[in-house]
Amino acid sequence: MNLDEAMARAIAASARVRGTTSPNPPVGCVVLDAAGELVGEGATRPPGQAHAEVVALARAGERARGGTAVVTLEPCSHQGRTPPCTDALLRAGVARVVHAVADPNPKAAGGAQVLRAAGVVVESGLRAEEVALGPLRAWLHFARTGRPHVTWKYAATLDGRTAAEDGTSRWISSAESRAEVHGLRTAIDAIVVGTGTVLADNPRLTARGEGVTRQPLRVVVGESDLPPGSHVLDDEAETVHVRTHDPDEVLAELARRGAVDVLLEGGPTLAGAFVRAGRVDRVLAYVAPKLLGAGPPALRDAGVSTVTDAVELVVEQVGMCGPDVRVSATIAATTSEG
Amino acid sequence: MNLDEAMARAIAASARVRGTTSPNPPVGCVVLDAAGELVGEGATRPPGQAHAEVVALARAGERARGGTAVVTLEPCSHQGRTPPCTDALLRAGVARVVHAVADPNPKAAGGAQVLRAAGVVVESGLRAEEVALGPLRAWLHFARTGRPHVTWKYAATLDGRTAAEDGTSRWISSAESRAEVHGLRTAIDAIVVGTGTVLADNPRLTARGEGVTRQPLRVVVGESDLPPGSHVLDDEAETVHVRTHDPDEVLAELARRGAVDVLLEGGPTLAGAFVRAGRVDRVLAYVAPKLLGAGPPALRDAGVSTVTDAVELVVEQVGMCGPDVRVSATIAATTSEG
Ligand SMILES: NC(=O)c1ccc[n+]([C@@H]2O[C@H](COP(=O)([O-])OP(=O)(O)OC[C@H]3O[C@@H](n4cnc5c(N)ncnc54)[C@H](OP(=O)(O)O)[C@@H]3O)[C@@H](O)[C@H]2O)c1
Ligand SMILES: NC(=O)c1ccc[n+]([C@@H]2O[C@H](COP(=O)([O-])OP(=O)(O)OC[C@H]3O[C@@H](n4cnc5c(N)ncnc54)[C@H](OP(=O)(O)O)[C@@H]3O)[C@@H](O)[C@H]2O)c1
Repeated sequence: MNLDEAMARAIAASARVRGTTSPNPPVGCVVLDAAGELVGEGATRPPGQAHAEVVALARAGERARGGTAVVTLEPCSHQGRTPPCTDALLRAGVARVVHAVADPNPKAAGGAQVLRAAGVVVESGLRAEEVALGPLRAWLHFARTGRPHVTWKYAATLDGRTAAEDGTSRWISSAESRAEVHGLRTAIDAIVVGTGTVLADNPRLTARGEGVTRQPLRVVVGESDLPPGSHVLDDEAETVHVRTHDPDEVLAELARRGAVDVLLEGGPTLAGAFVRAGRVDRVLAYVAPKLLGAGPPALRDAGVSTVTDAVELVVEQVGMCGPDVRVSATIAATTSEG
Repeated sequence: MNLDEAMARAIAASARVRGTTSPNPPVGCVVLDAAGELVGEGATRPPGQAHAEVVALARAGERARGGTAVVTLEPCSHQGRTPPCTDALLRAGVARVVHAVADPNPKAAGGAQVLRAAGVVVESGLRAEEVALGPLRAWLHFARTGRPHVTWKYAATLDGRTAAEDGTSRWISSAESRAEVHGLRTAIDAIVVGTGTVLADNPRLTARGEGVTRQPLRVVVGESDLPPGSHVLDDEAETVHVRTHDPDEVLAELARRGAVDVLLEGGPTLAGAFVRAGRVDRVLAYVAPKLLGAGPPALRDAGVSTVTDAVELVVEQVGMCGPDVRVSATIAATTSEG
């Protein structure tokens, strides 16, 4: 197996554990023996348990000696809740380490240096962009800014409505888009909505459907009390009610709870507050091929009054999700920041 | 040259004359000699002048004898302002005619039959969908319904705003999208707006930029007088003011003037009237990667009050135009009608 294929496998392994590792990064590792054969594979276990390298090396056993570890993130060299991965790599006797992205975390960084000092060949940058914009995106953002990464997700019609004139909105987007969102929910740490959405829709905010094994934290933002009997108060998942209007207080509370990757699901008022504060990092729009001509918008009060002050985005992906158009865009300013 | 390549060339030739042939169809024709070599190529000339087959045959001369005519539309067999194309094909002695789509027009149809009766091999259907959804789309719609084909085009932000809170809107969409729209304008017969847009923006509604050689008819709809000095009253292009609120009266007036392919450019009220009347056939949205959080929508009063009554579209193409997302969709009901 060549290095590129090995890294693709490591990335796939890391993608499968997304949502289960925070505040640790979801990392994937593949170990090749001296002849280039795949002898071990692994991904980060939940917090407090083994890192990806340790899992993959345990599987490889003696066959790792003289081989190559291919890993999505630079191995850590610090003692956290688990021992440094550099120790495990050196003990296993790998001759080479190839990682996609360097660790921006000053506490953990320096893994490459430690390995090189011990005579291991270290290479960096293989499929780096794929990893940085993919499985490690939220964690890298958190490592750089100290704030969870926020994806604002919404569903609207092509003419920009999130409900009809009479308030009906089930279902604006297609079954395919809804299924995809449930998949997303299992892969993130927290879902955030405003009290307005809870009062209007009484949503469950759980991940449902095939393959769902865990529930993200449910977060409701706003000063109003939640009516007893609200679905978010049931036992299907944990819920926290943050009684503030300040997005940074919400993010600080989430960081305190170890959340790194957050899905902001609206409504328009809370989304406006996050956009206004510069705290939306990515926009994920499911645009249904429908016209309504009336009804509420996806975003309100974003702090923009004239067109030259519009919040500028960069489209990173556009495609179809069933009959709907899916647009993924990053905030231009946030992009340049990180 | 094989037939498929020849048809691709015929399609390209027809696309170049889009906008110059109405009420006749923009047709392309390629003539191959008996050995399959390209010996003639042509496209429909302006009304009253030669059809595509006649142009291509004239170029081929004697070399057409025993050859194949590859044409985007079934050759006509009726005497209009010009003689039937079937006569020209028989006189040139072609052995075979391959066309993409059949002529739905009962007056012109039967060309295949006339040719077959004279011993010519006739084949139909090559690249038919490409032609029917491409260069001949509007004309086929007109031939079937008697109404010009209406493309409602608009530009909005990702959150569905066509201007900011203070009314500013220059420029919501990118330079690339604006250039593409100018290209579209030269390829259609008429641009339609409401008096509201003229009063608010005083637009010129002309096609501008490189390669622009002709101007579509400008059509303003509504009962208000146009202020003297309005750009639409200048000499850059012809303008007609239709003092009605009924989309069908607008389309009848356009049909009377020989317009087949129409671009509805707004604003939201007039677009709503056309959508409500079921007179939008295609929606072409330029979605700019910007957020405004306030400002007017692209569509108003479309006659929908509850979500189950939403006007259903089918996305036929989604892609990028510079930094913007371009979505082309057809109205589901109109699609099934035609
Ligand atoms: N299509 C979609 O993707 C989608 C997604 C979600 C919701 N929705 C729709 O959105 C509608 C609800 O809209 P909404 O705007 O009321 O919901 P919202 O944004 O979920 O909640 C608004 C509430 O959030 C609180 N809040 C928190 N921070 C704030 C700030 N900085 N400024 C102002 N308020 C802040 C306020 O509650 P307190 O007064 O309690 O402080 C405010 O009333 C529902 O009809 C729902 O269907 C649509
Ligand atoms: N982003 C874009 O793509 C885009 C494109 C165009 C316009 N716009 C914006 O749209 C705004 C103008 O909006 P608007 O809605 O006033 O413009 P509009 O739709 O162009 O014009 C509205 C007018 O059309 C007439 N009308 C014709 N048929 C009608 C019907 N069935 N029902 C009601 N009225 C009918 C009425 O005029 P009478 O009273 O004279 O009868 C009405 O006031 C401008 O600010 C412009 O910038 C944006």
